[in-house]
Amino acid sequence: MKKPKLILGIDPGTRITGFGVIRVDEGRRFSVVDYGCIRPPATKPLSERYRIIYQALEELIEKYRPEAVAVETQFIHKNPQSGIKLGMARGVVVLAASLREIPIFEYAPTRAKRAVVGTGRASKEQVRGMVQRLLSLSAPPEPEDAADALAIAICHGQTSGSEKCMPM
Amino acid sequence: MKKPKLILGIDPGTRITGFGVIRVDEGRRFSVVDYGCIRPPATKPLSERYRIIYQALEELIEKYRPEAVAVETQFIHKNPQSGIKLGMARGVVVLAASLREIPIFEYAPTRAKRAVVGTGRASKEQVRGMVQRLLSLSAPPEPEDAADALAIAICHGQTSGSEKCMPM
Repeated sequence: MKKPKLILGIDPGTRITGFGVIRVDEGRRFSVVDYGCIRPPATKPLSERYRIIYQALEELIEKYRPEAVAVETQFIHKNPQSGIKLGMARGVVVLAASLREIPIFEYAPTRAKRAVVGTGRASKEQVRGMVQRLLSLSAPPEPEDAADALAIAICHGQTSGSEKCMPM
Repeated sequence: MKKPKLILGIDPGTRITGFGVIRVDEGRRFSVVDYGCIRPPATKPLSERYRIIYQALEELIEKYRPEAVAVETQFIHKNPQSGIKLGMARGVVVLAASLREIPIFEYAPTRAKRAVVGTGRASKEQVRGMVQRLLSLSAPPEPEDAADALAIAICHGQTSGSEKCMPM
């Protein structure tokens, strides 16, 4: 019998950073531990918002001591300024894990959708519905960013251990 | 007589992050305190490279306790993946300052060039030459990334105190 392990999934963003912590038992069964999102006040300066995201992640990592952090790869924005801001939020996530020596894995959104729904073209609704089923939740997880973070964590739970799975 | 203050300028990058610490006396005279660059080994995983950058910045901030951190705004990359990586490096810089409650200011490369050389279209060579003169260095600062970081610090030294100068 394999030891259960915790995975922290993150969907980084400057406005909303979704997170989801799942537990993997015997390598296959998933259950939810925690999920939600970090919303730094939009009125705060950008530098303070990154600090808020970092400190919230720090708390989550201290509390759950996950075996791995899984993060969503960014898709390329049409607006490059948004891409840079998102890159900054992602840097903060990577740093929070890296400073605690927790391996970080990244997955494209299409890969996470395929892991959860079976197709990389699944809708947001389908992802939420399947995350609900896979984790036996009484309702689809809210908000969307938390559902995405749970999907990324599930994706890592299904993939980890395979040769294709390399930390960042 | 104004109290001298230290400014830490940063030119963030995943491969090379330039830094420059200058001292501003009586609001106008600049002198160099330290400069150089952080080069995380390219063979290390990306997450570890960000950690190395962060920890080096942490040391610089602890050592010099600058009054402000000035960082170069990124220009938009043709390759969006490079833009995201740079955004991540910049996030690490912003976080290092923000966690220590040091205000961060950002300047476009053209603005730094104008501050140092007098024109936003100055060449890299002109910037290095003027940084050398303004800081009374015996030779142009090497490498280029350190010269750029010193230029950003000088730019902030010239601008700070004016109404246009708002922290990030």
